Amino acid sequence: MNITAEEIWSAVRAIREKAPVVHNITNYVVMNSTANALLAIGASPVMAHAEEEVEEMVGIASALVINIGTLSPAWVRAMFRAAEAARKRKIPIVIDPVGAGATSYRTRTARDLIRAFPPEIIRGNASEIMALLETNAKTKGVDSTASSDAAVEAGRQLHSECGSIVCISGETDYVVGPAGIIRIRNGHVLMTRVTGLGCTASALCGAFAAVTANPAIAAAEAMAVMGMAGEIASARSEGPGSLQLHFLDALYRLSAGDIERLLKIGVGG
Amino acid sequence: MNITAEEIWSAVRAIREKAPVVHNITNYVVMNSTANALLAIGASPVMAHAEEEVEEMVGIASALVINIGTLSPAWVRAMFRAAEAARKRKIPIVIDPVGAGATSYRTRTARDLIRAFPPEIIRGNASEIMALLETNAKTKGVDSTASSDAAVEAGRQLHSECGSIVCISGETDYVVGPAGIIRIRNGHVLMTRVTGLGCTASALCGAFAAVTANPAIAAAEAMAVMGMAGEIASARSEGPGSLQLHFLDALYRLSAGDIERLLKIGVGG
Amino acid sequence: MNITAEEIWSAVRAIREKAPVVHNITNYVVMNSTANALLAIGASPVMAHAEEEVEEMVGIASALVINIGTLSPAWVRAMFRAAEAARKRKIPIVIDPVGAGATSYRTRTARDLIRAFPPEIIRGNASEIMALLETNAKTKGVDSTASSDAAVEAGRQLHSECGSIVCISGETDYVVGPAGIIRIRNGHVLMTRVTGLGCTASALCGAFAAVTANPAIAAAEAMAVMGMAGEIASARSEGPGSLQLHFLDALYRLSAGDIERLLKIGVGG
Repeated sequence: MNITAEEIWSAVRAIREKAPVVHNITNYVVMNSTANALLAIGASPVMAHAEEEVEEMVGIASALVINIGTLSPAWVRAMFRAAEAARKRKIPIVIDPVGAGATSYRTRTARDLIRAFPPEIIRGNASEIMALLETNAKTKGVDSTASSDAAVEAGRQLHSECGSIVCISGETDYVVGPAGIIRIRNGHVLMTRVTGLGCTASALCGAFAAVTANPAIAAAEAMAVMGMAGEIASARSEGPGSLQLHFLDALYRLSAGDIERLLKIGVGG
Repeated sequence: MNITAEEIWSAVRAIREKAPVVHNITNYVVMNSTANALLAIGASPVMAHAEEEVEEMVGIASALVINIGTLSPAWVRAMFRAAEAARKRKIPIVIDPVGAGATSYRTRTARDLIRAFPPEIIRGNASEIMALLETNAKTKGVDSTASSDAAVEAGRQLHSECGSIVCISGETDYVVGPAGIIRIRNGHVLMTRVTGLGCTASALCGAFAAVTANPAIAAAEAMAVMGMAGEIASARSEGPGSLQLHFLDALYRLSAGDIERLLKIGVGG
Repeated sequence: MNITAEEIWSAVRAIREKAPVVHNITNYVVMNSTANALLAIGASPVMAHAEEEVEEMVGIASALVINIGTLSPAWVRAMFRAAEAARKRKIPIVIDPVGAGATSYRTRTARDLIRAFPPEIIRGNASEIMALLETNAKTKGVDSTASSDAAVEAGRQLHSECGSIVCISGETDYVVGPAGIIRIRNGHVLMTRVTGLGCTASALCGAFAAVTANPAIAAAEAMAVMGMAGEIASARSEGPGSLQLHFLDALYRLSAGDIERLLKIGVGG
C-alpha cells in the first residue's frame, strides 16, 4: 500500500465532482465549522440528530459521521439508530470518540457504539484511542495527554478487535489498518489552538470514505488534506482566529500542486 | 409594486435605528452566524427554544423566525407555541423549511406549521418549496436540486393556498406574492460554499419584516441585501472562510451608494 | 487592592503554562466562539451538559462556567448538579445570567442557581444584574437597556446578599467586591456587534479564576484582557466579521507590552 500525491488529488477531485452527502451526528461546538469544512472541500453536509429522521437521512447519505462531543441520552439513541441504518445500506461509518476517557459516560458510549456497529474508521487523539481499550490513559478534558506514538500499540489492538481502521491524530498522524501503519507528518501546532479541528478531520474522513473504497486510504487522505490545508493556513495566520478562515480557504483552493509540494506521508511497520 | 434602492436603504436605516428584536428558533449549525448577521445589519437577535419561555420571549420581539434545520420533538412543540404567540401579537413570522423533502419528519413539520400558522414569509430553496406542495422534488440533503425557475410555479400555488409570501432563493431569487413576482439577481456562487447563508437570509427576512409593513417588499429587501453583501464580500475573498467575515463586515458597512450601485431587481410576471 | 499590568501579565502567563480545564455549560450560540477564546488565551475548554456526566467532568476541571443563554429543563438540572459538584471540589464557579429579566424562566433559573450555589463570580450586563434583584429593569432581549452606572448599586446589593463578586459589563466594566469597586475602561463599541462576547468574558473569568485566588481580581483581569484584545482587534477590523478573528488572534498574542500600554483600570469607591 502506497499513497501518492496523485491519488490524493484524485480523491479531492472526486469529492468536488460528486459532492457526496455526509450525514453528521456531531457536537454542538463544531457543527458550524464542520459543515463549513465539508462544503469547502466540496462535499454536501447534512446535520440531523432526531430519532424521528436519522434513518431516513442516512438513506440519502454516502457516509455517516458520529461524534460524541456533547452527548445526551436522546442523541445516543439516535446514533445507534443511524449506525444501524448505515450498516444496512453499507455506507461507511466514522466514529469520533471525543473525550473518551474523560467521563465514563463518553467512554462507555463510544465502546458500545464501536462494539455494536464496528465502523470503517475510528478517529481520535491518543488519549481517546487508548481509553477505548481500558488502558490507563488519563484524558485531560478533550485534549490528549498521551503521545501519538504511545497510542499506536492501542490502535493495533483496537484494530485487531473490531476490524476498524484506527486513525490517531497528533503531531504525527497514524492510520492503523490491515496493511500496516501509515504515518502522516503534515499539520501545524497552531491548529491545536482552534476548537474542533479533530472533529473536522473525522468529518473529512467521512467525505473521503465516500469516494475511496479502502478506508485506510480514505483516512490517510483526509488526514493529509487536513494537515496540508493547516500548513498553508498557518503560514498566512497571526493566530488561531485567522487560521480558521485561511484553513477553509485552503481546503477550497487545494490544488494538485499544493499536494505534490507539501505531502509528507510514509507507509510501513 | 416597484422597489428602489432608496427604499431598501431606508429599510436598512430603520433596522439600524430601531434595532428590532428578532426571536429565532433555529438550528444548532447556524445559531452563531445568524445572530452575528442580525447584529451586523443592526437588529437585536434573541435565541430561545424552551417551551417554558418562548411565548414570553415572543412578547418582546418584533419578528419571529422559525427554522427547522435540526429538529427534535421538544423544539417542534416550542415552534408551535411561539408561532401561536406571534399570531396573537400580530408580529411577522418567517418560516424556513430547511431540508423539507429530505425526510418526512421535516416535510411534515414544515407543512403542519405553515397550515396551522400561515407565516408572512416562507423562504427556502427550490427543492424545499416544492416539497411543501407534495410535488416530486428530490432534495439532496439540505441543498437544492431543483432550479429556482422550476419552483416558481410551486411558489405561486403555495402562495395561493396559504397566503404567505413565498421566497425561493437560488441563482435568481424569486419573491412570489399577491402583486406578482419580484426577481433579485444579486449574489455570488461562492455563497453556496458557506453553511447557513440561506438561514441567514430567513433571519434577515425577519429583520426587514419588522420594519417594512409589506412582507413581499420585506422579503425582497432581505434577499437583495444578502446578495449585495455577498457580492461585496466575494470580491474580497479567496474562499468560503474569508467570505464569512467579509460578508458580516459588508452587512455592517452597507451604504446607500453600495445599494445604488449593485441592486439588480425586477418586478413583474 | 490595586491591579497592575504586571499582575495581569502574570495571570495570562499562568493560564498559558497551566492550561487549566474550564468546564462550560453554556448556550448553543456561543459554544464554538467560547471554546476558541479559551484556547486562544491558553486554557483547555470542555463542554458537557448531560446529567450523566457533568459531575465527573467537573472532577477534572479547574473552574466551572454556567451560562443560561439557551435554557431547557434538562440543561437546568445539569447546571445544578455541576454546581453542586464544583462546590464540593472547591473550584470556582462563574454564572452568566444571559437574558435574566427577558423571561421569567431565565430570571428564576438564574436566581435559583445563585441562591443554591453562590458563585465566586456573577457576570452580566446592567439589565441582567438588576433583574437578579427584582428591580424594575427592562431587558430588551439579551442586550442591556440599563447603564452600567445604574447597575452598580444593584451589584453592591447582590454582592452583600450572596457574597459573590458581581461583574457588570458595559462601556465601563465594574467589578463589585468586598474591597470596593474596580473599574475597567478597556474595550471598543464594535464589540457589541459580535454575538457572545459577553459569554466569552464569563468564560475568561473562569480561566482567570482558575489561576488567581482572589475572584475580584480574577474578574478584573478577565475584563481587562477582553477589553484590551477587543481594542487591538477593532483597530484592525472593518466590521464585526473581521473583529471576531482579530480578537482571537489578539488573545493569542497578547503580550506584557500590550497590557502595559493599554490597561485602563481604576480601583476605589
